[in-house]
Amino acid sequence: MTVPSLEVVNKAIGTELEPITYTYTERDVSLYALGIGAPADWLDQNELQYVYEMSGDGFKVIPSFGVIFSGRQIESILSGNIAGIEFNPMMLVHGEQFLEIKKPLPTSGTVTSTPKIVNIFDKGSGLLMVTDVTSRDEAGDVLTVGRSAMFIRGIGGFGGERGTSEKVEIPERAPDIVHEEPTLNIQALIYRLSGDRNPLHADPQMAAVGNFDKPILHGLSFFGFATRAVMKHFCDNDGDKLASIGVRFSKHVFPGETLIIEMWKTSDTDIVFQMKSKERDVIVLSNATATIKR
Amino acid sequence: MTVPSLEVVNKAIGTELEPITYTYTERDVSLYALGIGAPADWLDQNELQYVYEMSGDGFKVIPSFGVIFSGRQIESILSGNIAGIEFNPMMLVHGEQFLEIKKPLPTSGTVTSTPKIVNIFDKGSGLLMVTDVTSRDEAGDVLTVGRSAMFIRGIGGFGGERGTSEKVEIPERAPDIVHEEPTLNIQALIYRLSGDRNPLHADPQMAAVGNFDKPILHGLSFFGFATRAVMKHFCDNDGDKLASIGVRFSKHVFPGETLIIEMWKTSDTDIVFQMKSKERDVIVLSNATATIKR
Repeated sequence: MTVPSLEVVNKAIGTELEPITYTYTERDVSLYALGIGAPADWLDQNELQYVYEMSGDGFKVIPSFGVIFSGRQIESILSGNIAGIEFNPMMLVHGEQFLEIKKPLPTSGTVTSTPKIVNIFDKGSGLLMVTDVTSRDEAGDVLTVGRSAMFIRGIGGFGGERGTSEKVEIPERAPDIVHEEPTLNIQALIYRLSGDRNPLHADPQMAAVGNFDKPILHGLSFFGFATRAVMKHFCDNDGDKLASIGVRFSKHVFPGETLIIEMWKTSDTDIVFQMKSKERDVIVLSNATATIKR
Repeated sequence: MTVPSLEVVNKAIGTELEPITYTYTERDVSLYALGIGAPADWLDQNELQYVYEMSGDGFKVIPSFGVIFSGRQIESILSGNIAGIEFNPMMLVHGEQFLEIKKPLPTSGTVTSTPKIVNIFDKGSGLLMVTDVTSRDEAGDVLTVGRSAMFIRGIGGFGGERGTSEKVEIPERAPDIVHEEPTLNIQALIYRLSGDRNPLHADPQMAAVGNFDKPILHGLSFFGFATRAVMKHFCDNDGDKLASIGVRFSKHVFPGETLIIEMWKTSDTDIVFQMKSKERDVIVLSNATATIKR
């Protein structure tokens, strides 16, 4: 593994990556929802509407599906080369994800996403790449605006800016809502069919290369569990009421673990939350916020 | 619901239905395998090879996938009219399924199936329709030959032949192998994405129309669980060693129930088995046999 030169890094910043066109069907929408744990209760119409296209209450898209639109970026990630920066794909982890929902997501259609590398930070132990993505429907309307940060272990120390680390304050009181939900042992095997085929999430041998005892769950899968929890407790299970959601992936989750999501309502429209792995009592999502439409 | 005339029934017998072309990808193969319970242990390479296309041991297709090739027949079933026989789709249940595997199934490709109604029996309480399907790959080679029987409650008594009912003898000794395996609450919600969107398997209200307390698991899903159990115990988990498998669907399974599969080896190549729901202690698959290649 070679640390990139500062010149290569500086050249990469500002790079617009190839536009990504993604066409999806109702089946893809349902499969995504299953990958993020819906329905928690298979007999409950509140979440059945996300996995069952003939649902009496109408078929709906969980808005975190927006992160899938640019999912084909995984191809460049697995190639181990993004804008000239080379790395071992097994050393890359999703660092942060923010998603703003501008328009209800259609239950099928074609979406075009334009990713752009907006910054690259030198965190010492690794490199942090920040990418913005705007996704538009066929009419050209913006559906979602996303920002993701990818952390690549082992290629820090190239002499770049360290960047600041914004910290979301957790209120000192007990959480207003504590939501607990199990994941399946096969959670990552379901989620990966939504596009992120990184072997780290399926292959015990490749997980070992990444220094994990076993394959880990996709960060964007438990990001989806968090989205569902916020929707359930603050949006009447109606994704159209969610304006944005953002998280920092602070630790991995192993498939089969139970997630505990602690949520605080800090204003009429603002939610602060964190997620823990119940079994290991570690915080897996931190610096996490959501905003609700009123 | 109207009982068909004997004339309509006799005209339907021998009808060749429209050929069905099915194109599938590795993703479809993995999704099918998840729908029939693979992998039982997500860290076990023996079954990971059915859901993970980059598996070190090679990616393989569980041969019961062959029943999916003609899966689009569900469209005519849901239309409530097959070859002029009209019925309420909620009253139709899969009665029997037999599948012969002629050639290892490719991990992706296009398959053409030609279904033909070979017989229709009058069982008094309902009508039993027997359909044969031959499925061929792009080279024209036969991959699978299937025979299925669909039982439609409430439209028997049209004066047709009752038909004989072959009975597979269960040996008097205790089973040679007893295999136990849970299904998921969302098992049918996964399985239905392989094509059988019958609301009976997802929608509590539609299940009630079919006189079930809640949605039931697809017969072909637990047929797949049985196939995996036979492969594990008699084929070294190698689907290429399975020559054929056939079952009678004697009772429904609710998603979330645990399946008990009792198996007897009756010759070097022959297996007899039955499946029970552990929770309700009822036989759900009977008259069940498999043959192994030697």
